[in-house]
Amino acid sequence: MTVSDVVVVGAGFAGLSAAHALVGAGLRTIVLEARDRVGGRVLTRVLPDGTQLDLGGQWVGPTQRHMQRLIAEYGLETYPTPEYGRPILDYGGTRPDRRPDEIVALLDRLDDLSRQIFPERPWDHPRAQEWDTLTLAAWLSTQNAPDTAVRYVGRVIAGGLLSCDAGEVSLLDTLFYVTSGGGTTALLDTVGGAQAYRVGSGAQRLAERLAADLPEGTIRLEEPVRRIVHSPTGAHVETDHGVHPARHVIVAIPPSLAGRIDYSPSLPAQRDALTQRMPAGYALKVHAIYAAPFWRDRGLSGLSTSDSGILTETVDNTPPGSPRAVLTAFAYGIDAHALRRHDPAQRRHLVLDRLAELFGEDARAPEDFIEFDWCDEPWTRGCFSAHPTLGTWTAYGPALRPPIGALHWAGTETASTWNGYFDGAVESGLRAAAEIAPDHRH
Amino acid sequence: MTVSDVVVVGAGFAGLSAAHALVGAGLRTIVLEARDRVGGRVLTRVLPDGTQLDLGGQWVGPTQRHMQRLIAEYGLETYPTPEYGRPILDYGGTRPDRRPDEIVALLDRLDDLSRQIFPERPWDHPRAQEWDTLTLAAWLSTQNAPDTAVRYVGRVIAGGLLSCDAGEVSLLDTLFYVTSGGGTTALLDTVGGAQAYRVGSGAQRLAERLAADLPEGTIRLEEPVRRIVHSPTGAHVETDHGVHPARHVIVAIPPSLAGRIDYSPSLPAQRDALTQRMPAGYALKVHAIYAAPFWRDRGLSGLSTSDSGILTETVDNTPPGSPRAVLTAFAYGIDAHALRRHDPAQRRHLVLDRLAELFGEDARAPEDFIEFDWCDEPWTRGCFSAHPTLGTWTAYGPALRPPIGALHWAGTETASTWNGYFDGAVESGLRAAAEIAPDHRH
Repeated sequence: MTVSDVVVVGAGFAGLSAAHALVGAGLRTIVLEARDRVGGRVLTRVLPDGTQLDLGGQWVGPTQRHMQRLIAEYGLETYPTPEYGRPILDYGGTRPDRRPDEIVALLDRLDDLSRQIFPERPWDHPRAQEWDTLTLAAWLSTQNAPDTAVRYVGRVIAGGLLSCDAGEVSLLDTLFYVTSGGGTTALLDTVGGAQAYRVGSGAQRLAERLAADLPEGTIRLEEPVRRIVHSPTGAHVETDHGVHPARHVIVAIPPSLAGRIDYSPSLPAQRDALTQRMPAGYALKVHAIYAAPFWRDRGLSGLSTSDSGILTETVDNTPPGSPRAVLTAFAYGIDAHALRRHDPAQRRHLVLDRLAELFGEDARAPEDFIEFDWCDEPWTRGCFSAHPTLGTWTAYGPALRPPIGALHWAGTETASTWNGYFDGAVESGLRAAAEIAPDHRH
Repeated sequence: MTVSDVVVVGAGFAGLSAAHALVGAGLRTIVLEARDRVGGRVLTRVLPDGTQLDLGGQWVGPTQRHMQRLIAEYGLETYPTPEYGRPILDYGGTRPDRRPDEIVALLDRLDDLSRQIFPERPWDHPRAQEWDTLTLAAWLSTQNAPDTAVRYVGRVIAGGLLSCDAGEVSLLDTLFYVTSGGGTTALLDTVGGAQAYRVGSGAQRLAERLAADLPEGTIRLEEPVRRIVHSPTGAHVETDHGVHPARHVIVAIPPSLAGRIDYSPSLPAQRDALTQRMPAGYALKVHAIYAAPFWRDRGLSGLSTSDSGILTETVDNTPPGSPRAVLTAFAYGIDAHALRRHDPAQRRHLVLDRLAELFGEDARAPEDFIEFDWCDEPWTRGCFSAHPTLGTWTAYGPALRPPIGALHWAGTETASTWNGYFDGAVESGLRAAAEIAPDHRH
């Protein structure tokens, strides 16, 4: 049996980036992937007529330097998120032209506090304990802001960014996430922000290019890892098909799933407790496909954010030159649950009802309606990314990244910059690779 | 290969009780246990001189009817928790003789609210959503009670009952737990309450008697279950040693661990999300062993509860006729973390320091000091029991008990009465057995 220098678990952007760096450093590396494809939480689907959908992660922003570098390296094209017209801000039954001051004030306050957090160690802030056991909702309710603003900011921050409810996430985790992405403007904005661009051929293409760039045989698909027998000097990684010995292992999958692998010897209590307390978010992303982007005729961009209704956000998701137009809608937390409890026909009806309220009656009759439920995916089990529950950052956060003997931890949840995004995944893969081959750090 | 009627996963009180009922109903049953012993979170250790310690669960109370029945059936003796002297209530730097009114008022208010909750479905309460995203700490802080009372009640309820901090558990889960145990008096009290009695020969003896009562070969030790291939009509349960076909499976292990089994087909999103959001509590139970129960000479019972300091509770844990005296101390949540971060010698020092503050200088020099860390145990991974994180009861609670095809769910976390206790474990095992053999319900 050949002993690899490194076995990487998971062929998402974290695992692929790690493998890339390790191979570049001359290390014998294999990547074990449970699925029959690479890309992890990124999945591009092309409909028979050529309409292209990104069912998972899809956007890149200008300050995401790892992604910018990769896109340039592979010569992929990007295009700006379409904004032909006005966005809708559905706010307390009105549609103001711009963000009301009370929203801006709340976001500013979050930004101010977030700048006090070191994203490498949020648990070190003097008020970390207090903020870690205070929900975002509870904090918002003490800011002397109107209820509508509290509700709106809770929805776009806890929902739109963390894919949960403001009542289930801590202020500390919110501040960590905000500072990790460079502030609420960078996180929430289209132009200049995290939703600025898409990859021309679909986000999964970038993962495929990264994979194709690795030596043949590096990536082993449909090899879910069941068990890792490890010591300070090496490990045996067991899959359904065999045992892979290695000097190091990089586990580059979401924390809950990392916690489901059988480690021998078993992991320290603090690390195990952490993986018990980082559930994946719960979001629903649905695509309504129309013959034409009818909303543009009404001067609407297709972008919307709402303080009520089952859809927190919508976006015009039509690639340039697409045969048909795509309106993509997001529901988070309790709204996502409510939608999921219905059968597909009812769910479609509820979503289209809301789209019609926002964009007019034409929204009721899409030619296609495409759902993809990441929470049903056994090798993802949530959408978008995972977040520490209340009290978890301060109690168990320090176990997030440090290697345990031959075991290293990657995945966007371990990133300090752009945590939860492609870019954070790449950062985490490079960081884990650098733990093993420190001279080849990007 | 013989097809069992039922394979039970886990030989704790839930699994053993289920097996007992199923065998009684004439069903071919096997129990697969990962450890080399039965009893789950119950473990009795006898020191060389005969001093007996229950390192895990240990108490039974008069309203725990399943336990009362089992103890009677097996003719085991019980003895009351020793109370030779006064308990200590360390409260804001004073030691009041009885609970101050402000504590009683807070506990009464919790009891009043808890009586509004149906323990079978806490998510159905009209205010469930609100209470599920409100921490116990946040609720306590709005009750116009002195800080000391808020801190004390937070510690004895969130810590002493739920083994976590008041800032990480929801009001809804607290109310559920309180009503499940019959109110704060039943839960907190020694005489007449959940800590009234111990089993004479140690709590593990009862598990061993239950096990011995099953047909030979029923229990298979050291067979951790890795995978369950299931359909509506049956399942194959895979361990390191083989495959066990069955018509039904009862998974009778803590929710986090149940979530780590590889199910094929994979489980519905709501069930998976639930197991991502029910971390085990984090408590430390340590035993200081002395030549004699010196505290009794000072008129002290050994019982203490404190609003500050690393030990929330202590108890005289000396069995009748024991060669030596045992003082047992509990730390919860952040206090348990703080203690764990120290090395064993420092931890011992910190615990004994606090015991000396409470009971006098004699406490500093025990003959033995015994720790057992349940969070390090790969087949438990926490102490005492698991609790849904904020927002989890309302979003995913309905997935806690319903069978999924051939799969049934047991374990004390699925109980509606005495959830978190032996008694809840037994209830859950009998309930799961009754799902399969409904005519033999106890």
